[in-house]
Amino acid sequence: MSSNQVDGHPFFRFCRTALENIRAQGRYRQFTPLARQAERYPLYDQPETQATPSTPACPQDREVVVWSSNDYLGMGVDPVVVEAAIQAIHEHGAGAGGTRNIAGTSPVHTALEAEMADLHGKEAGLLFVSGYVSNQATLQTILSSMPGWICFSDRLNHASMIAGIKGARGSTTVIYEHNDLADLEAKLAAAPRDAPKLIAFESVYSMDGDISDIAGTCALARKYGAITYLDEVHAVGLYGDQGGGVSERDGVADQVDIIEGTLAKGFGVHGGYITATSDIVEYLRLAASGFIFTTALPPAVVAAALASVRLVRKDGWRRERMFERVNTFREKLRKAGIPFTMTPSHIVPIPVGDAQRCRELSDRLLNDYGIYATPINYPTVPRGTERLRLTPGPFHTDEMMDDMVTALSRLLRINDLAPQPVAAMA
Amino acid sequence: MSSNQVDGHPFFRFCRTALENIRAQGRYRQFTPLARQAERYPLYDQPETQATPSTPACPQDREVVVWSSNDYLGMGVDPVVVEAAIQAIHEHGAGAGGTRNIAGTSPVHTALEAEMADLHGKEAGLLFVSGYVSNQATLQTILSSMPGWICFSDRLNHASMIAGIKGARGSTTVIYEHNDLADLEAKLAAAPRDAPKLIAFESVYSMDGDISDIAGTCALARKYGAITYLDEVHAVGLYGDQGGGVSERDGVADQVDIIEGTLAKGFGVHGGYITATSDIVEYLRLAASGFIFTTALPPAVVAAALASVRLVRKDGWRRERMFERVNTFREKLRKAGIPFTMTPSHIVPIPVGDAQRCRELSDRLLNDYGIYATPINYPTVPRGTERLRLTPGPFHTDEMMDDMVTALSRLLRINDLAPQPVAAMA
Ligand SMILES: Cc1ncc(COP(=O)(O)O)c(C=O)c1O
Ligand SMILES: Cc1ncc(COP(=O)(O)O)c(C=O)c1O
Repeated sequence: MSSNQVDGHPFFRFCRTALENIRAQGRYRQFTPLARQAERYPLYDQPETQATPSTPACPQDREVVVWSSNDYLGMGVDPVVVEAAIQAIHEHGAGAGGTRNIAGTSPVHTALEAEMADLHGKEAGLLFVSGYVSNQATLQTILSSMPGWICFSDRLNHASMIAGIKGARGSTTVIYEHNDLADLEAKLAAAPRDAPKLIAFESVYSMDGDISDIAGTCALARKYGAITYLDEVHAVGLYGDQGGGVSERDGVADQVDIIEGTLAKGFGVHGGYITATSDIVEYLRLAASGFIFTTALPPAVVAAALASVRLVRKDGWRRERMFERVNTFREKLRKAGIPFTMTPSHIVPIPVGDAQRCRELSDRLLNDYGIYATPINYPTVPRGTERLRLTPGPFHTDEMMDDMVTALSRLLRINDLAPQPVAAMA
Repeated sequence: MSSNQVDGHPFFRFCRTALENIRAQGRYRQFTPLARQAERYPLYDQPETQATPSTPACPQDREVVVWSSNDYLGMGVDPVVVEAAIQAIHEHGAGAGGTRNIAGTSPVHTALEAEMADLHGKEAGLLFVSGYVSNQATLQTILSSMPGWICFSDRLNHASMIAGIKGARGSTTVIYEHNDLADLEAKLAAAPRDAPKLIAFESVYSMDGDISDIAGTCALARKYGAITYLDEVHAVGLYGDQGGGVSERDGVADQVDIIEGTLAKGFGVHGGYITATSDIVEYLRLAASGFIFTTALPPAVVAAALASVRLVRKDGWRRERMFERVNTFREKLRKAGIPFTMTPSHIVPIPVGDAQRCRELSDRLLNDYGIYATPINYPTVPRGTERLRLTPGPFHTDEMMDDMVTALSRLLRINDLAPQPVAAMA
């Protein structure tokens, strides 16, 4: 215990009170430790654990089927990807040893940057330590580059985009209603003609599973002279002939100025990137604090990601299989009368509508059925829209689906756990 | 090429001009692709490369001795660390597959957090995707938590701390002169008594290699009721009996409220962390955007880091050997009359004082001698203080040192490459 604490700095009291409030609101989060089994994905081991403030107790080791992973295609456990990672560790060790400028650029970093540019049909690419950092650093740097920037930001944009947009102090932010092009147009039309403008949006919104109109957004961008910034984090690997995302599927990648993505979800590894014209990428490479002042991604992470991207571009079967599994699962839910939100994407939200109930439903799934589905509560989604968010992948079997459907049917029949409107009717 | 570009959005012109200016100032950075050889560190391969905007040409493959790595102890290539990484990839795959909350917490994440807390004698630890993000997210979250925060920040603090401090909009920043406790005290005394205060500083300042007075800073913190935030990024693994950093060496870790570090330098892998009281760590875990909304570090990265930390804590020989090598190298520089900045740390800066000359010196070392030392130019250091920054490690042999000394002696005799004051005298 630090001597300051004894002196009672107000921050110590603040933390204590904040934690009590979070607990009282039923949105205290514990992280369930789960060890992915590379060879049996989506099976994980949950080890015996004593309760700590941050992790729940687990009375004994057990095996769990995970329904919440964002390694949507299982690329992180693909033998080719695993082999690429291991090979690179043997050759180059476990870390990069420096920032990109300070001996941390290996040939595989530049190869992956070129690969991502090629995937999205752009002149150049730039790697960041995560998708979060790619959004934050890029948006903040661009929106701080010239005076007068106005950023038009979809209301449901991800926290990482918001961090970058808010971080650009001199710029103005205009929030438009989610996926509402009429609102966006009204706001673009109302803005000063000469101000530099940027529209920031996502393709697949991961918590609701809806998809934006990229062509429509880009048409407005042209009409009002804005550049476009598109987060394809939940779409790369999954949509388009080569996994280039919704912009590839819709044939509009060339209309988007900056396409951002992650290597950690559809590609199953780790890291983030942007692709754009050479000039934009070069400017960010030389100016973005979050890119410059940090150790480069380990060569093994980059080598694994490169192997994954190449595989995903070439082989469509994982994508097809994932969508087939998603459809099969929805069909099973429908037949069992389990309420879910129908989406045009691969995401299957099960509405719950209350933080405590959502956490309880997740706990019961885990403890009684050996099924893991993360409760999605505030601040990830607005209060009152709490949900389970299921991501069926190519390796979820019919049997796993049937088990999930049985478990959900039983648990949702328990009054306390049913979605709020249903409970109200009962 | 995007259709917007044809329409001439001002940002495209802005980038073009910015890049021309950077070039004109001689501070255009190219990253030299170098592939670390795990079994022969600090030897790297420089592959044959065509010139691109971001990388210099290399006429043919060559072997290079690297003097700029921040994997100070070579932990990233240690067989035990390499084995831990490979084992974890075999077992768990190449990525985490989700955020910490969404199935991304593996038992090894919680084990590493406990290990870091133990190393620094704190109640709890929290991992981030990088040291950069640990600084940015922690400082921004704390300084936004209550109204009226005043952050006292050392003038030479790292970009990642500055990003977090600037990102906390409601707070006030007071910059004190570098390592100047009299100035810090004057500024603390002048601040409103009741405002919540935080002092943010580093132990080893990596570009100058000087070390702060932690005990003195903490004494002022107690006197004026501030909490203390210490970046030990360039010290962990290297200082203290177990590599707990300068705060361990000086026996004052318990006086510091929050100790931050990286797993990417002295520990040779990747990722960042903080350690503090449970309440502070729990608050950040539940409130820090940069922690919550991003994919967890891959289990293999975490497993490698855990193996590295355990090894470094137990075996002092790498630290001892590194300091012996640093001293031997300084002795050789002194004998050869090569100007360098004497520092109380493991860092050996060679002053150059001009961006163009610094870049040229680095190029000549690489092309004529097969030695790589990054030119350190603006924005990493202030203009006029450009330098080479050398980091001798346990695996730099006497022969490598003699080669470096010979190369530097010759190159610094060339008028255009000598440090500015020397050139002026000539
Ligand atoms: C829309 C969106 N963008 C960016 C990110 C961040 O990507 P990463 O996990 O690679 O940091 C996420 C999720 O993590 C996301 O959902
Ligand atoms: C003082 C300091 N803090 C933090 C960082 C960031 O750490 P990381 O490389 O793990 O992002 C660095 C360098 O990269 C640094 O020099």
